[in-house]
Amino acid sequence: MFSSEAADAGTKSDRTRARLRAIALRSFRERGYDATTVRQIAAEAGVSVGVTNYHFASKNRLVQELYVDVQERHRAAAVPALDGVDDLIDRLTVIYRTGLDELTPYHPHAGEFVAAAMSPKSDVNPLSAESAPARDITEALFARAVSGAKHSLPADIADRLPAVLFLGHLLLALYWAYDRSPGQERTSRLLERGLGLLRLALPLVRLPLVRRPLREMLDLIGEVRS
Amino acid sequence: MFSSEAADAGTKSDRTRARLRAIALRSFRERGYDATTVRQIAAEAGVSVGVTNYHFASKNRLVQELYVDVQERHRAAAVPALDGVDDLIDRLTVIYRTGLDELTPYHPHAGEFVAAAMSPKSDVNPLSAESAPARDITEALFARAVSGAKHSLPADIADRLPAVLFLGHLLLALYWAYDRSPGQERTSRLLERGLGLLRLALPLVRLPLVRRPLREMLDLIGEVRS
Repeated sequence: MFSSEAADAGTKSDRTRARLRAIALRSFRERGYDATTVRQIAAEAGVSVGVTNYHFASKNRLVQELYVDVQERHRAAAVPALDGVDDLIDRLTVIYRTGLDELTPYHPHAGEFVAAAMSPKSDVNPLSAESAPARDITEALFARAVSGAKHSLPADIADRLPAVLFLGHLLLALYWAYDRSPGQERTSRLLERGLGLLRLALPLVRLPLVRRPLREMLDLIGEVRS
Repeated sequence: MFSSEAADAGTKSDRTRARLRAIALRSFRERGYDATTVRQIAAEAGVSVGVTNYHFASKNRLVQELYVDVQERHRAAAVPALDGVDDLIDRLTVIYRTGLDELTPYHPHAGEFVAAAMSPKSDVNPLSAESAPARDITEALFARAVSGAKHSLPADIADRLPAVLFLGHLLLALYWAYDRSPGQERTSRLLERGLGLLRLALPLVRLPLVRRPLREMLDLIGEVRS
């Protein structure tokens, strides 16, 4: 029957797509960005480059799958860890810490991803339109960290935080990519000290003298897109 | 006479080197990083690729010449503008503002330079050993801004500022590379708001509760190298 054949074809196509995706994600982790090619992924999957391109139009399209995969794992690790934590800085520690943990397997090749992603014209730039699906997951995590916290921040500041905290996450990942200390312990210390100082600074945010220029600065930072 | 011939050859070689450098710097400014090649520079100078490589071993060696040129112009603009300015934040405004002004002609191609420079393994990374000559000029400018200012910062914090202010300069340049507003006016506003908030925060630095974690954080940031 035609509809059954179509369903079977769909299923086979779905399986091929899932296999290509899994091979690509493992290759990015083990070989890095530079050494991963569509040709090699196709060969490992036992399909033609044409079939691979049908499912994923380019290598960078597969990087988007990687981004979403990493951010879904990030969410899966962070959301239960937020349970019962109501201090804002403690909640931010959970998000940043679980985010770094998910990146750990990629550290040996982090520089390649930085090089590929940093151009404002790159479609794997985390601030590009193409990267919105992965970015939305992480920004939603920061929104959840802020909205579920006991804090006394004015609403106009709290509303602007998730976008800026997400940029903080990207800068932290950039620092981490350069970090050659064992287990990237310098990044861990930077995060701890940075959030400690943020804790001291938070009460000042309610002063009108601070609040107004801060609000404008948060807007200028949070709206950066590539 | 042999010594005179050698001197003449030296002079001709110096002239060739200066011409190659000038052609490369103009090409980086007008065509950008990607479209500038050693072959094209050699052709414009009327010399062989071999002669070009004798003077500058690679295109990235010429980028180092560009970095030093931009930072020497930065210093030439900043030093006289610091005269008679003794407020720390006003002095930092001078350094950051003149730094952005020197970058302006390169904005149309800024993304290409970001892409080439951001990898931790790139020899044109501003934090690489190869980039030390240009970096030293800018760090010395920030050291001058701090040491010549009337401020009440503890010495252990003031000593650590130039390296971190230099990283701030790189982050500001990164923001500027992404800034598509007319005349990059968003970058100007970000700088103004950021330094305004720094002015409000400076008195807090003397509190032991702030000073200790801040000192550690300045060390972690200031020591980043690629």
